Amino acid sequence: MSDVTAAERELGTAFLPRFDAQGLLIAIAVDSSTREILMVAYMDAEALEKTRETGLAHFHSRSRGKLWLKGETSGHFLRVEEIRVDCDQDALELRVRPEGPACHTGARSCFYRKIDGEGLARIEG
Amino acid sequence: MSDVTAAERELGTAFLPRFDAQGLLIAIAVDSSTREILMVAYMDAEALEKTRETGLAHFHSRSRGKLWLKGETSGHFLRVEEIRVDCDQDALELRVRPEGPACHTGARSCFYRKIDGEGLARIEG
Repeated sequence: MSDVTAAERELGTAFLPRFDAQGLLIAIAVDSSTREILMVAYMDAEALEKTRETGLAHFHSRSRGKLWLKGETSGHFLRVEEIRVDCDQDALELRVRPEGPACHTGARSCFYRKIDGEGLARIEG
Repeated sequence: MSDVTAAERELGTAFLPRFDAQGLLIAIAVDSSTREILMVAYMDAEALEKTRETGLAHFHSRSRGKLWLKGETSGHFLRVEEIRVDCDQDALELRVRPEGPACHTGARSCFYRKIDGEGLARIEG
């Protein structure tokens, strides 16, 4: 990693994902049709590799400490159509086609509430 | 924190941000007009408080270990119009009006490249 300069990482065309001290990077899943943010989670190198291999979003579950295929129990897979990377390559935007609600609560997106005064309000839609 | 159940956090109307072991949560800035993801960073309690107080996005810089008002040197502030929170309240979506390019490279968004084969390709637009 130390051989890679910031300029190469930011301006180059080499994919050089920058995992943090825990071996993770942020992955934001966005509905490729509606552009809605569906969920955000972490990926380690294994999850990234599996995602690229299969075209289905895999993450790293910090609570369970292991690889997590999104939809493995619910069937609500996220089919990855495009992967974007940010300037310093420590975050990914996954453009996906969701096969069902992305949130385990049954909501289409995990971001179903907004701050409203001192509390939260449900977002319609 | 231990007094808050997962159900209260997920289904309730109380704003109960869940900071991780480093005292941070993920904040994703989205252009409120175009819906484009502009950048992703971390917030600690102080950054969140300052953001709510001022209406300008503040983050916590992990590299510098301190509060960071986005735009403090460039003038490219992010005016926060709405804050959404995810199911387990460890990530925020900031709907913002950007006052200039959000990326320090001069790009409108930090996500200006996509994975293309084994490398990266610049996204037009």
